[in-house]
Amino acid sequence: MPTDPYRDLYALRAAGMTGSEIRALFSVLERPEVISLAGGNTDTDIVAHRIADCVAAVLSGKGATSGGDPLGYGMSDGVPALRALLCDLMALQGIEAAPHQILPTDGAQQALELIGKIFCDPGDLVLTEAPSYVGALQAFQSYQVEMRSVATDGEGLVPQALEESLAQIASEGRRAKFIYLVPTFANPSGITLSAARRPQIIDICRRNNLLIIEDDPYAYVRFEGESVPALRSLTDEGIIYLGTLSKVFSPGMRVGWVLAPEPVRERLLLAKEAADLCSSPFTQMVAATYLASGHVDEDLQIVRKVYRERRDTMADALDAYFPREARTRLPEGGLFLWVTLPDVLDTKAMLGRALEEGIAYVPGTAFYPRKSDGLHALRLNFSYPSVEQIEEGMRRLGAVVTDELELSRSLEA
Amino acid sequence: MPTDPYRDLYALRAAGMTGSEIRALFSVLERPEVISLAGGNTDTDIVAHRIADCVAAVLSGKGATSGGDPLGYGMSDGVPALRALLCDLMALQGIEAAPHQILPTDGAQQALELIGKIFCDPGDLVLTEAPSYVGALQAFQSYQVEMRSVATDGEGLVPQALEESLAQIASEGRRAKFIYLVPTFANPSGITLSAARRPQIIDICRRNNLLIIEDDPYAYVRFEGESVPALRSLTDEGIIYLGTLSKVFSPGMRVGWVLAPEPVRERLLLAKEAADLCSSPFTQMVAATYLASGHVDEDLQIVRKVYRERRDTMADALDAYFPREARTRLPEGGLFLWVTLPDVLDTKAMLGRALEEGIAYVPGTAFYPRKSDGLHALRLNFSYPSVEQIEEGMRRLGAVVTDELELSRSLEA
Repeated sequence: MPTDPYRDLYALRAAGMTGSEIRALFSVLERPEVISLAGGNTDTDIVAHRIADCVAAVLSGKGATSGGDPLGYGMSDGVPALRALLCDLMALQGIEAAPHQILPTDGAQQALELIGKIFCDPGDLVLTEAPSYVGALQAFQSYQVEMRSVATDGEGLVPQALEESLAQIASEGRRAKFIYLVPTFANPSGITLSAARRPQIIDICRRNNLLIIEDDPYAYVRFEGESVPALRSLTDEGIIYLGTLSKVFSPGMRVGWVLAPEPVRERLLLAKEAADLCSSPFTQMVAATYLASGHVDEDLQIVRKVYRERRDTMADALDAYFPREARTRLPEGGLFLWVTLPDVLDTKAMLGRALEEGIAYVPGTAFYPRKSDGLHALRLNFSYPSVEQIEEGMRRLGAVVTDELELSRSLEA
Repeated sequence: MPTDPYRDLYALRAAGMTGSEIRALFSVLERPEVISLAGGNTDTDIVAHRIADCVAAVLSGKGATSGGDPLGYGMSDGVPALRALLCDLMALQGIEAAPHQILPTDGAQQALELIGKIFCDPGDLVLTEAPSYVGALQAFQSYQVEMRSVATDGEGLVPQALEESLAQIASEGRRAKFIYLVPTFANPSGITLSAARRPQIIDICRRNNLLIIEDDPYAYVRFEGESVPALRSLTDEGIIYLGTLSKVFSPGMRVGWVLAPEPVRERLLLAKEAADLCSSPFTQMVAATYLASGHVDEDLQIVRKVYRERRDTMADALDAYFPREARTRLPEGGLFLWVTLPDVLDTKAMLGRALEEGIAYVPGTAFYPRKSDGLHALRLNFSYPSVEQIEEGMRRLGAVVTDELELSRSLEA
């Protein structure tokens, strides 16, 4: 590696920018012999046949958006019809929102970036669950924050642990800027914050003036069990809510949004303007036309049925092919299974071997602020691969895990 | 305005984020009675009829990109076929580039943002022309830089002034992070850095280890005169080159790119990943399919003919309807006329009156780091409005300017 002649020009924050272990895998995943249980793609075949119609409608001016050129620059605050339709979508979850409180973004990831940009000075404290969404860690850490994690259990964030964490921070004379949560089907753990705890968490945050970032990509992908109200449906104060059409429609359209208190939304809008002027009016209009098409519910029912079947296949294969020490918690929705292996196994070290055997996953370390955590866990995606690929992929991975475990035990012995 | 309950949570940099005076105008421009000579939109009717074909090809897997799901997540470093086609496009300008040096971005604006993010610490010095592109000022200033402008004349940046500016900075014991330039048909001035000066500027920057950001959106929109080589075609060291398909294809697709030395491109890629995971593979593939269609040159010839006619209409109308003290320099390409009015007129103060008369422009102050500059200038766009709208719009604006000038002189008398 030659020396970088520009190395003394970078900003201090550039040192804190690290690549996602998921995205680093992407080039390997192009190889046809590799079955990928990494990534977080959806099965876009389910909606693909709708897209051509939506695009045709938009290009002929018959889309869900009257006026406005899909091919020209748009307003930074997004296509008005899309904002209104997103309010309707959120209303299904009991969230009351007005279009002027919404800012469409390039996926919810851009909302995370903009939040980092307007809130985070170097050294600021940000709270999160652990494990937590890798893209959020990247976005916030790129603004040089200190991430601190709060304990979770099977019901999600532990209220007592949050209280203690905030007391600790106060005793240090510091203050956290916000807490970042994926309360429903957390990525990667699949854990849902229980309905009973939600008002408790809101109450603790309110008493401590702690802003909540509620990232909610998976609520529409619940296959079973009772739905749990979004935090934002319980209160409209002190919460910035992030949504995305990536799991409902298509990740490749890059349509996400942020629903924020008005003064915060104003700041986010200024940051958005500097970041890219505007999101594509074309993809926003295609998405709006899809939302208005009347097919969303029908398609979501297919999505839920298909993903549920894939989740079950994956869970059964875990039982069949993995050592019985491999543990998971069956999520009632979302896209992922989070698997914990015996402590003797290092999932990051094991990845090379797995790729050789034609199977990819994401090592647990990707999801922790401290890279020494999550060594024995891995994340598996069941939304993208077919049932057959899941079956074969789990067989391959199970064999690798079994082998590695035997090897490590023979070394110990 | 109620107090913002979140005001003590924002990052320091949030204070430096200001809205663009152009984008603030957008809501007014929705009113049908207003003719807009503001904005920087292109005439998308010229390519609109191509889009449906390109989209259909992409959705049926017959686009210029083999493999890869247009509807799923893409790689952060962009669609490979697009990167290769962008190399071909730049080769027309004599720029030698390899696909792995290119990072597609959401318009060139995102490249400006990412450059600000990886290079700029608070208080860093950044050099630019004055006037300069408002979006670049916003992106860099949002990272708390100090912008310093270097004098230009009719041939662009003055080499002697750059030398002096760098000597001054050195004498302060400081260093500029980079110089930002739009060397060809600068926005807003329309000025092109002369062919004779280009190697001189490169030489000065090289001797002073000053990185050049060459933003080149308009090179393909030259209607007359001899083309001038891109700085990046003269050297591949010390230059980060920004391109966009916004003026060639469609602003609404948000396809831009940055061509950077490899270590810099690596850093930009990490920042891009945190910013939005990836640009839309769908719009990237549509753009790639258009570039590969064989129609680009044919369409660009129409673009040039149409814009030239509109520029001429605007220049003629300036002669016909404006006081003779109004001055401009006829650009050989690009989208804008930069008009300087007598010192007694304040174009920002005049804007309200102009909007009442049904005509919009961008006040000159938008394009200066110091808001006390550019008071007497305004930017007019001729690429978006029709010849008839330009004629009528200039008549309205000419009347406003004439009135205001008479008023101010009667007050002086």
